[in-house]
Amino acid sequence: MTKPLVGILDPFFFEVVEEIRRDLRVLFGTANPMTLAISGTGTAGMETAVSNFSGPGTKLAVFVSGFFGDRIAEMGRRHGASVVRCEKPWGETFTEAEASEFLDRERPQLVAFVHAETSTGALQPPLAITRPARALGALVIADCVTSLGGVPIDADASGIDIAYSCSQKGLSCPPGLSPITVSPRAAEHLKNRDNPVWYLDLKLISDYYDAPHKYHHTAPISTFYALREGLAAIMDEGAARRYARHQRCHQEFVRRIEALGLSMHVAPGRRITTLNTVRVPAGADDLEIRKRLLSGHGIEIAGGFGPLAGKIFRIGLMGPLATDENIELFFSAFSQCLAHAATSV
Amino acid sequence: MTKPLVGILDPFFFEVVEEIRRDLRVLFGTANPMTLAISGTGTAGMETAVSNFSGPGTKLAVFVSGFFGDRIAEMGRRHGASVVRCEKPWGETFTEAEASEFLDRERPQLVAFVHAETSTGALQPPLAITRPARALGALVIADCVTSLGGVPIDADASGIDIAYSCSQKGLSCPPGLSPITVSPRAAEHLKNRDNPVWYLDLKLISDYYDAPHKYHHTAPISTFYALREGLAAIMDEGAARRYARHQRCHQEFVRRIEALGLSMHVAPGRRITTLNTVRVPAGADDLEIRKRLLSGHGIEIAGGFGPLAGKIFRIGLMGPLATDENIELFFSAFSQCLAHAATSV
Repeated sequence: MTKPLVGILDPFFFEVVEEIRRDLRVLFGTANPMTLAISGTGTAGMETAVSNFSGPGTKLAVFVSGFFGDRIAEMGRRHGASVVRCEKPWGETFTEAEASEFLDRERPQLVAFVHAETSTGALQPPLAITRPARALGALVIADCVTSLGGVPIDADASGIDIAYSCSQKGLSCPPGLSPITVSPRAAEHLKNRDNPVWYLDLKLISDYYDAPHKYHHTAPISTFYALREGLAAIMDEGAARRYARHQRCHQEFVRRIEALGLSMHVAPGRRITTLNTVRVPAGADDLEIRKRLLSGHGIEIAGGFGPLAGKIFRIGLMGPLATDENIELFFSAFSQCLAHAATSV
Repeated sequence: MTKPLVGILDPFFFEVVEEIRRDLRVLFGTANPMTLAISGTGTAGMETAVSNFSGPGTKLAVFVSGFFGDRIAEMGRRHGASVVRCEKPWGETFTEAEASEFLDRERPQLVAFVHAETSTGALQPPLAITRPARALGALVIADCVTSLGGVPIDADASGIDIAYSCSQKGLSCPPGLSPITVSPRAAEHLKNRDNPVWYLDLKLISDYYDAPHKYHHTAPISTFYALREGLAAIMDEGAARRYARHQRCHQEFVRRIEALGLSMHVAPGRRITTLNTVRVPAGADDLEIRKRLLSGHGIEIAGGFGPLAGKIFRIGLMGPLATDENIELFFSAFSQCLAHAATSV
């Protein structure tokens, strides 16, 4: 990020952009030409997806079992879509039978789900949603904010039309950019409409990133440099090796959590490997434990919110943090803090 | 920007944010509590202004004499406002009599103008617009993308309700943030409506930056660090001294341009001191001259576009670039390139 800035139409900048687009295709698991980074954070990516593909006259079905599914539904409402929600308790995922029953009844043109729900730690198998959605001819949006670079997405094989993410989680870069990918059949839908949101209009943004590069906005050049380097580091390790490392660390993490007598919030097989959610033991004060962990050991973990406030810890183990040494460090500190909490109760 | 990232709800981050907000108030010339930085580039600031204050049922009057006035009008149209335009040739500004005549006839609720028009180099005196607009009770938006940190804005004294800018011009920071300020009477208007654009909703964004800091999106922390340092450097010099330096360099620049027998595009007294627009001499190929300047001397200047394509050079002299040494360097290189162009014709 300390490298000299170049102009927003400088050929060097577009070299950087093309490297980013190439590597993002690998991590999204797609051949989509329309794969790029929006100049905003993950929420801007979500709104890019919602505002470019829904509006008055669109029926949007959203699968909600956490905070971010709810946010998609709210955005759809603001953009004038007719929104229907399929809801389950926070932390659960949807089966294909559940999705099918809901979608066949509602018959939406657009379907959205959260692949990796940051608020709960649950990973939604994409095909359970995309198969019944595509059978209806609907386009499918997947929120991959917490999954990109952490776990495989395989957008093309999974039948996802539009997927968006952020730069600061699985990609382990500074925040400020939101990678997005759009399938050719979804891109077709853009031809016939202007997005009401100029800043997030995918047609205009594509005209900027694709030759001959028509000016649209001033891209945050330094943040693109950071994303390029972060992606290069991921490619050096190899995406498959990175996912396997996350998986291995996750398994070891779960083993040690259960050895402490604690339990994971999400059912096995539905857990995000890079974001572990652990149930707060009965009687323990989660804020007290988190504060002690931060002040005494320099380790920051998150708590739950919404219906999960005070009920779970959210513990990231992603990118450079997912190592055996860090697991050791974490459990050494965490078990001390838990013991202290038990004593004080 | 290389400093360690902190969490988006970390007290340290909000210390950084408060320093930024304080310094932005100085440069905008305002006491507005609602002064903050949008997590996007200047165009995101423009859309924040347009989308929060206009929509179906709003009559929006836009003063257009350049590319960015036109963009505001287009955004207003997309957001459903009824847009009326007062137009003059690119590079001219509006007198109070012209603004008055137009506004009294149209009676809009919202008025927008470009303070410093990047595409032409013209500086619009704010009071010529704000006096007749406020007489009608309209809110006034000023595009200050190229003026903030370069020339005085005096938003409060100038009667500007909403002003937005960018981080990479007058503030001389990396791009990625869009400072914005909103007057209390404009902020009142926000209470009764939800912005259709969630990412740019000023109510939600204010709830994040103001205590108790309700999560809205993941702010680009590193870019905030950069903005804080850039603003600190400006405060070290002093805003008034910075404007005076820009003014002095501009005068010297104009003197030397005229000594070369060239002329400025914008009338005296209406020029942006930090962005000088010079008419391309008859018969000269502006692209050829700009290419030679870049390849032979490492100096990048911009050309005109739209109706001014091929007709003007746009030469930035802002922030750390506005020094006597750089003027010397520029004219030494520029006169060589002009001489070469004259020989080859």
